[in-house]
Amino acid sequence: MEKVRIGVIGLGMGAMHAKYIADGEIPGAELTAICDLDESRIAYWRDQWQDKVAYFTDAEAMMDSGKVDAVIVATHHYLHPVLGKTVLEKGLHLMVEKPAGVFTKNVRELNELAEQCGKVYGIMYNQRALPLYQKLKDLIDSGELGELKRTNWIITNWYRSQSYYDSGGWRATWAGEGGGVLINQDPHQLDLWQWICGMPKRVRGFCYYGKFHDIEVEDDVTAFVEYENGATGTFITSTGETPGTNRFEISGDRGKIVIEDNKLTFWRTRVSEREFNATFKGGFGQPESWKCEVPIPEGDKSKIAHRGITANWVEAILKGTPLIAPGVEGIRGLSISNAIHLSSWTNDWVELPLDEDLYYEKLQEKIEQSTFRKKVKEVVSSDLQNSF
Amino acid sequence: MEKVRIGVIGLGMGAMHAKYIADGEIPGAELTAICDLDESRIAYWRDQWQDKVAYFTDAEAMMDSGKVDAVIVATHHYLHPVLGKTVLEKGLHLMVEKPAGVFTKNVRELNELAEQCGKVYGIMYNQRALPLYQKLKDLIDSGELGELKRTNWIITNWYRSQSYYDSGGWRATWAGEGGGVLINQDPHQLDLWQWICGMPKRVRGFCYYGKFHDIEVEDDVTAFVEYENGATGTFITSTGETPGTNRFEISGDRGKIVIEDNKLTFWRTRVSEREFNATFKGGFGQPESWKCEVPIPEGDKSKIAHRGITANWVEAILKGTPLIAPGVEGIRGLSISNAIHLSSWTNDWVELPLDEDLYYEKLQEKIEQSTFRKKVKEVVSSDLQNSF
Repeated sequence: MEKVRIGVIGLGMGAMHAKYIADGEIPGAELTAICDLDESRIAYWRDQWQDKVAYFTDAEAMMDSGKVDAVIVATHHYLHPVLGKTVLEKGLHLMVEKPAGVFTKNVRELNELAEQCGKVYGIMYNQRALPLYQKLKDLIDSGELGELKRTNWIITNWYRSQSYYDSGGWRATWAGEGGGVLINQDPHQLDLWQWICGMPKRVRGFCYYGKFHDIEVEDDVTAFVEYENGATGTFITSTGETPGTNRFEISGDRGKIVIEDNKLTFWRTRVSEREFNATFKGGFGQPESWKCEVPIPEGDKSKIAHRGITANWVEAILKGTPLIAPGVEGIRGLSISNAIHLSSWTNDWVELPLDEDLYYEKLQEKIEQSTFRKKVKEVVSSDLQNSF
Repeated sequence: MEKVRIGVIGLGMGAMHAKYIADGEIPGAELTAICDLDESRIAYWRDQWQDKVAYFTDAEAMMDSGKVDAVIVATHHYLHPVLGKTVLEKGLHLMVEKPAGVFTKNVRELNELAEQCGKVYGIMYNQRALPLYQKLKDLIDSGELGELKRTNWIITNWYRSQSYYDSGGWRATWAGEGGGVLINQDPHQLDLWQWICGMPKRVRGFCYYGKFHDIEVEDDVTAFVEYENGATGTFITSTGETPGTNRFEISGDRGKIVIEDNKLTFWRTRVSEREFNATFKGGFGQPESWKCEVPIPEGDKSKIAHRGITANWVEAILKGTPLIAPGVEGIRGLSISNAIHLSSWTNDWVELPLDEDLYYEKLQEKIEQSTFRKKVKEVVSSDLQNSF
């Protein structure tokens, strides 16, 4: 294969992917097909691309057309694993938008299929391709921070107004999205949190539903977690605060790292704290530490964010390059998200790995018991294509 | 009364108070007596002050001596409310060091006595007399931040080494201190948190006992709270991290305030978020906000911190000036502290006001069931007088 022929399903978020591929920004890739249920969207893009691309309103027809080697699934969340399975079953390579799905039960089935079929399966965790988080992961993985003691992510800069929620009937409903800030806004942070710090072993979640908005799902969440080594963590998020905060602090044996305002600061102790603790004899006192401003490379535009993830996926298809964001890892952040919900619903700890059947059952209850009726209003101006 | 004659009980922390009073730094006050069980401490100060001051090893003897009008109790925590009651019963004015006590049951008895007896009862919440927190309280009380949505205090800069804990047999034991970081290091922050943001209505605490040190009490804590108006909060603290963090973030209807590095920054929205949420029609979008660096007055040295609290107490005795830190308010921060412990012990929510009898009972169990035997070691150099 010289060029990977890509089809995109879902032209909300998917339109961005389709466009940079069509514009030739991904080496080794060409956009050959797009698909959406909404004919007006198709018409819009047909106007731009004419017969350079094939147009579909039926996803399977696109997969069966012989025009695509690989498919990006950028539909509503619930369909990600469903369409994902069809893509793999048809022998095509797969990229899914985040989240991997709404509940882990069918995401696990997709993962099992992916592991058998040998096709390249990636997930659009574009923030893994940001130099800032790659540097942080490097510092943790290489042991610069030492053994972790605590993680704390305040990610409250996902402000959304009522008008945003009113812009789509499916938004922020149990049936339409399967959750609120956890499932729509936070998947990147939940993934980065586990990618960098590892999976927690148990979770205590506190979710508030429709607290700041007229919606039925959560818009305010605090979660507390414990890790295998005894470290603990908190994750605080909301769509009701403005201006919010995005501050990720990790403390370890060799000091602490804080990411805020796109800067990485490492307060590095000169010696190991555990060693200091064991040997110091002076009563009050602590290890000398240095405030280090760690440089973050700017990065090659074609290798960062969405384009970086897509380019890496295409390279994996063409040359076997390892994936930055393997699709099978999408279940991890989703497990944390599901565990936070479940803990809130049961008012108790949730152990990981999650009881998938219980989560699925409780989610169905939410959907069935929903009495919420959305009043969808016209939005004056909204650039949802740029949502991420 | 022209001058308030002050006696100090307990010459660990109390020595600092005794010294600035003896040095004439508190207008209207004179140091007339000091008391400690440890004769070597008495001898040390007798050497300095000769017959300017009376010396006691028996607290009641000092109270009965006719040489003091007012007493500062700066003993071990358990004795604060016990000695406090005796001071008031003997018709003297009272200042207790923080914490007000170890459990709220006897602190409440002291409060009831104080409300009957008409003597001036203060508590050494010296951080209430810092311009930084006074400014923050002013901004909240005057409504500049609007209704509160979330509070988050990361106060992990209480690093202590094993050597500190080994410096006293009573330290960090259930019998000697009745707790760890919550009861020894955090009382100021727990008080400021409630002084500025109000009391929570329920608490979920996660405490880890002897996690970073060879001690039996908690040295790592995360607490999650809910307030009456639906706001939530977190309080994260430890003595095992270095360099730690002291960052207090409060978000409200008009933006957010962050205190860190002794600076107060107010991200102020131009309009109310609740109003914006209700009226904005544009889908994505949020209120304009301005990053405001709020000036903190330097403050008159005699009116800030410990000296400020003592001077205010003396003024209250002489002129009826309102107290900055009324003793009866000491029970509030202690209630939060007790609730965090109790929630951790029962693995459940704790409602406030606290079930005081249950807390007392559980604390007695901890004391009785303690199998921890401390190895007290000599500390090479330790300046515990400067502990605060």
